[in-house]
Amino acid sequence: METHFHEELSRLRDKVLHMASLAERMIQNSIQGLVQKDDEIRKKVFITEEEVNQLQIDIDDRCCKLLALHQPVAQDLRMILAALKICSDLERIGDQAVNISEQSAELIRQPPVKPLIDLPRMSEIVQEMLREAIDSFVHSDADMARNVLLKDDDVDHLKDQIFRELLTYIMQDPTVTARAISLILISRSLERIADHATNIAEDVIFMIKAKDIRHHAGE
Amino acid sequence: METHFHEELSRLRDKVLHMASLAERMIQNSIQGLVQKDDEIRKKVFITEEEVNQLQIDIDDRCCKLLALHQPVAQDLRMILAALKICSDLERIGDQAVNISEQSAELIRQPPVKPLIDLPRMSEIVQEMLREAIDSFVHSDADMARNVLLKDDDVDHLKDQIFRELLTYIMQDPTVTARAISLILISRSLERIADHATNIAEDVIFMIKAKDIRHHAGE
Repeated sequence: METHFHEELSRLRDKVLHMASLAERMIQNSIQGLVQKDDEIRKKVFITEEEVNQLQIDIDDRCCKLLALHQPVAQDLRMILAALKICSDLERIGDQAVNISEQSAELIRQPPVKPLIDLPRMSEIVQEMLREAIDSFVHSDADMARNVLLKDDDVDHLKDQIFRELLTYIMQDPTVTARAISLILISRSLERIADHATNIAEDVIFMIKAKDIRHHAGE
Repeated sequence: METHFHEELSRLRDKVLHMASLAERMIQNSIQGLVQKDDEIRKKVFITEEEVNQLQIDIDDRCCKLLALHQPVAQDLRMILAALKICSDLERIGDQAVNISEQSAELIRQPPVKPLIDLPRMSEIVQEMLREAIDSFVHSDADMARNVLLKDDDVDHLKDQIFRELLTYIMQDPTVTARAISLILISRSLERIADHATNIAEDVIFMIKAKDIRHHAGE
């Protein structure tokens, strides 16, 4: 029974890892589709979304069964609850990548407002945050999780920079307004993804330390 | 032991109800502060946020203890897991109200772009969705929960209408750009609150029916 339980926990971890790698690929494809004006890459996001949604249902189901059948306590209980929360964040990260891809549909058919440099950079940081947050979960590494929290400021900074710059483009030429606002909304989606990666990191620290650091990240 | 457990469950429900009423007040104050250009009302949101954050930690803690000490199954287990998810959505609703209040800080010091009619209407629908989602949780009412899902379309419709209208204001007069984008971002925050209310309603249906309707709302 015990071996079986720990095998199940390890399978749960693998599922979360797989779901996270799909979510990361969705972010990458959504931004790559925009930057390279490639409709094929952009549309991949919608296909991966199906898979991510199915995985969330699967992981949720596994967590419920593990809780009901094995009634775990302490560290194991916290790990299962963390998995439950993480998969909900991953699903929402997927939703944001879908938002970006939808927002890009029109954009890639029109002349560019400006060369896209900050958005791909922002996307890279955000993907790194997600990767580290999930690694910290798999390896129960609180230091790595804390590292994720620090990067959130870089993302906020880039988001503000993108906003201010695009505003000047609109002022100079109001015909770019709709396109510039699309780019601003895409940067907000990336910011939300960073927030989800931050949530995951906080859940991992809670799982390890059994101490709630949420709402105290800055202290 | 059993009586004690059911008392604890009932206390948990009360806590969720209280947290939801605070979150709803945050939405109301954030929009009222903007519409009435009232800095006092606007700032109330930041104070209530503290309380909401504390409640999330409290509810999380109660859920963990109930799971660890009583090892509930079936309906009770699903109710506790639903509470765990709902309080995370409520906390994020609070975050969005904070975003709206922050966004308003500059806005209420400047001349209005246009009379605000659609935003307060959108806010009312969103508050109603939240109230119904929480009522459906407290009364285990799946029909009421399903009703919430239907209203999400109205919110999306209003969001698109606000976007298109503000775009025409920018085209006519680029000096309103920053203010108009602020209003667009506020409408996106309300949309995100509606998404969270929808998540809550889906969790309630799952709790009642033990059947996953997520990702199938439209079917």
